[in-house]
Amino acid sequence: MNIVVQKFGGTSVRNLECQRQVMQKVLRPYREGNKVIVVLSAMAGETNRLLELAKEWSDNPDPAEADSLISTGEQISCALFAMLLKQQGVKCRSVLGFQAPVRTDCAYGKARITNIDAPKLKDILQEYDVLVVAGFQGCDDCGRITTLGRGGSDTSAVALAAALKADVCEIYTDVPGVFTTDPNMCSGARKMDRIAYDEMLEMASMGAKVLQIRSVEFAKKYNVTVHVRSTFSDEPGTIVTQEDESMESVLVSGIAYDKDQAQITLVHVMDQPGVSAQIFSPLADQKILVDMIVQSPSKDNLTDMTFTVPRADVDQTIKTLEKLKYEIGYEELTHNLNVSKVSIIGVGMRNHSGVASRAFRALADENVNILMISTSEIKVTCLIDDKYTELAVRTLHKAFNLEEGNQKE
Amino acid sequence: MNIVVQKFGGTSVRNLECQRQVMQKVLRPYREGNKVIVVLSAMAGETNRLLELAKEWSDNPDPAEADSLISTGEQISCALFAMLLKQQGVKCRSVLGFQAPVRTDCAYGKARITNIDAPKLKDILQEYDVLVVAGFQGCDDCGRITTLGRGGSDTSAVALAAALKADVCEIYTDVPGVFTTDPNMCSGARKMDRIAYDEMLEMASMGAKVLQIRSVEFAKKYNVTVHVRSTFSDEPGTIVTQEDESMESVLVSGIAYDKDQAQITLVHVMDQPGVSAQIFSPLADQKILVDMIVQSPSKDNLTDMTFTVPRADVDQTIKTLEKLKYEIGYEELTHNLNVSKVSIIGVGMRNHSGVASRAFRALADENVNILMISTSEIKVTCLIDDKYTELAVRTLHKAFNLEEGNQKE
Repeated sequence: MNIVVQKFGGTSVRNLECQRQVMQKVLRPYREGNKVIVVLSAMAGETNRLLELAKEWSDNPDPAEADSLISTGEQISCALFAMLLKQQGVKCRSVLGFQAPVRTDCAYGKARITNIDAPKLKDILQEYDVLVVAGFQGCDDCGRITTLGRGGSDTSAVALAAALKADVCEIYTDVPGVFTTDPNMCSGARKMDRIAYDEMLEMASMGAKVLQIRSVEFAKKYNVTVHVRSTFSDEPGTIVTQEDESMESVLVSGIAYDKDQAQITLVHVMDQPGVSAQIFSPLADQKILVDMIVQSPSKDNLTDMTFTVPRADVDQTIKTLEKLKYEIGYEELTHNLNVSKVSIIGVGMRNHSGVASRAFRALADENVNILMISTSEIKVTCLIDDKYTELAVRTLHKAFNLEEGNQKE
Repeated sequence: MNIVVQKFGGTSVRNLECQRQVMQKVLRPYREGNKVIVVLSAMAGETNRLLELAKEWSDNPDPAEADSLISTGEQISCALFAMLLKQQGVKCRSVLGFQAPVRTDCAYGKARITNIDAPKLKDILQEYDVLVVAGFQGCDDCGRITTLGRGGSDTSAVALAAALKADVCEIYTDVPGVFTTDPNMCSGARKMDRIAYDEMLEMASMGAKVLQIRSVEFAKKYNVTVHVRSTFSDEPGTIVTQEDESMESVLVSGIAYDKDQAQITLVHVMDQPGVSAQIFSPLADQKILVDMIVQSPSKDNLTDMTFTVPRADVDQTIKTLEKLKYEIGYEELTHNLNVSKVSIIGVGMRNHSGVASRAFRALADENVNILMISTSEIKVTCLIDDKYTELAVRTLHKAFNLEEGNQKE
């Protein structure tokens, strides 16, 4: 049984006309003799409409009831799409989260998939050629409806592809694929043919929001090949897959950026064991995502501790740390909202030195001052003044010849 | 465990303000220490909105998908109401058809309940004080969502009351109870305190549409006491229950009417065995509901066959019978659209003669001509010219002293 999984987002199913376009995409692998699993999101706007209702009804809506409420969005889009497809004579039916079933834990609103009943789904596939599966939703062990959090339909699709050992998991979206950088910022941005899971994870978390990050982790874990492509064209998109040699021959795959950052500095912290924990544990407790952390060289047993947080969490971060001023024992807290992160990403840099220095030189040549640096195996990130974001992205894109598809020297 | 079942229709839950009113109704038995099963319909208008969507998507929507689609209506109202109630500190949760589960056959769109998992619901009731159950929906043995047909929420409520052996099943509606006749037609109409199941069945099928007829059959079968009452007042309504002696002491309980009727006559049919079957089987095959049937006395081995059908089915009836003109062998087909049925109903007439003749005399005194008559154990129905409907209803209401609550002489 050859199985193809296809996922379409809310924009792609937002009305009858769009659903007819989606139908053409579904009929292609169907006519080639494949069984097709179509994973749908709610029609664009519907989830927000339902969340607004919940807010009107309660200041603090019960998470389990909220999940039951918003899961109706996918239920509606799936039923309608199945009607459409059935009218074409296709043996098909809708399958809701509890029907598959897609089992999850009971973390309502952000549940994680624990199991998909592949044998049951394969049984259903004996009778039907196309299953229209509600994305974003599942059910816990008690049979209550859960949702996977925003963008969860991507994860549904990848998890189904993994469970059913599908030949491919196609994620249809409103862009043609994954680009070397944001095309709105850099006209030279080029669609990649292939990208490794780890690179995609870095790209996604940095704001190239084509695929939900959790779905990429899932795809990597279960080695599911994901094809990100456009609903509105037949061109191939970008294959997200495991690293192979051809990828390693590319030094840098893409440039990502994130303007939603703020920099915090604690001036003159005592440089002694435990002080980092004193600073960062209270922030972690409040689910504030601290990213880059730099500790300046100690002088007179005092150091400066600088780090970044999402801009939305700045007030909370400052409030938390000011309360702890005497416990931590710092002299002053400063912050800077006008910063952004720019990263160069590529599995190729693992086995190659000189990538970072080449990046620094390129930025220096354009007089872009680097405020902080952090590096990982496949990423170099620079914090810069946010007014230079576009300049930095373009400069780095050019420095690594991404327009043409750079090769290792 | 004392259990109270309460059902609220779409008008009662149509917005936040209405749901707050409903909440007050629910809190009353809850505060008295009862476990409460609240059965809700979809918010008014929602089911129609979804049906319109289905019609837009398909000329002939798949019934199973249509059920999955429209069941979201109750899912939304239940989730929202549970949020509201939970905010008051009540231990409550929503329960969907597949979660209860309310098992049905797989006649999508008009499914019949086959089983309710009472032990499971009682288990859930150990943990929660109020269950907000989606009316109108269930699931078949394959776990697909079914709906019970229009007004099915009444049936859901009665079935839950039967399964859980609830103390009472309260059906909240926008009228104060069941009336002796239509108050819009007869200002003397009086709210009944009690009515027998059989009387209610006759009243309901005749157009006094307070309770869905199937729910009354269900209530009768499982001996569930139903209390029909108003969402907008605290006054007691009408108890629908099994017949008892006090009811039999009342000769006539109510006057019903149905203006949606048409009369068909086949003139000069051969009076021979099998001719009735020849006429009525083809109509039954097309699900045309033939009601009153009168055969005139035979003359020269010829007879006239007269019957009534719902007005909407007249064209279909005529078309069907004209095709069979030579097989049946009648001379002429006539029809009359300007007729209506008026009935007097009461379990008391079972053991009492003279009810019919008293009715005929009352109508005659007002010069209302009777076109056809049919009688059952607890009902006398007259077909009349529909312009006399109001006159006939008022005349009969008065003739049996229904304004004061008539007693047997």
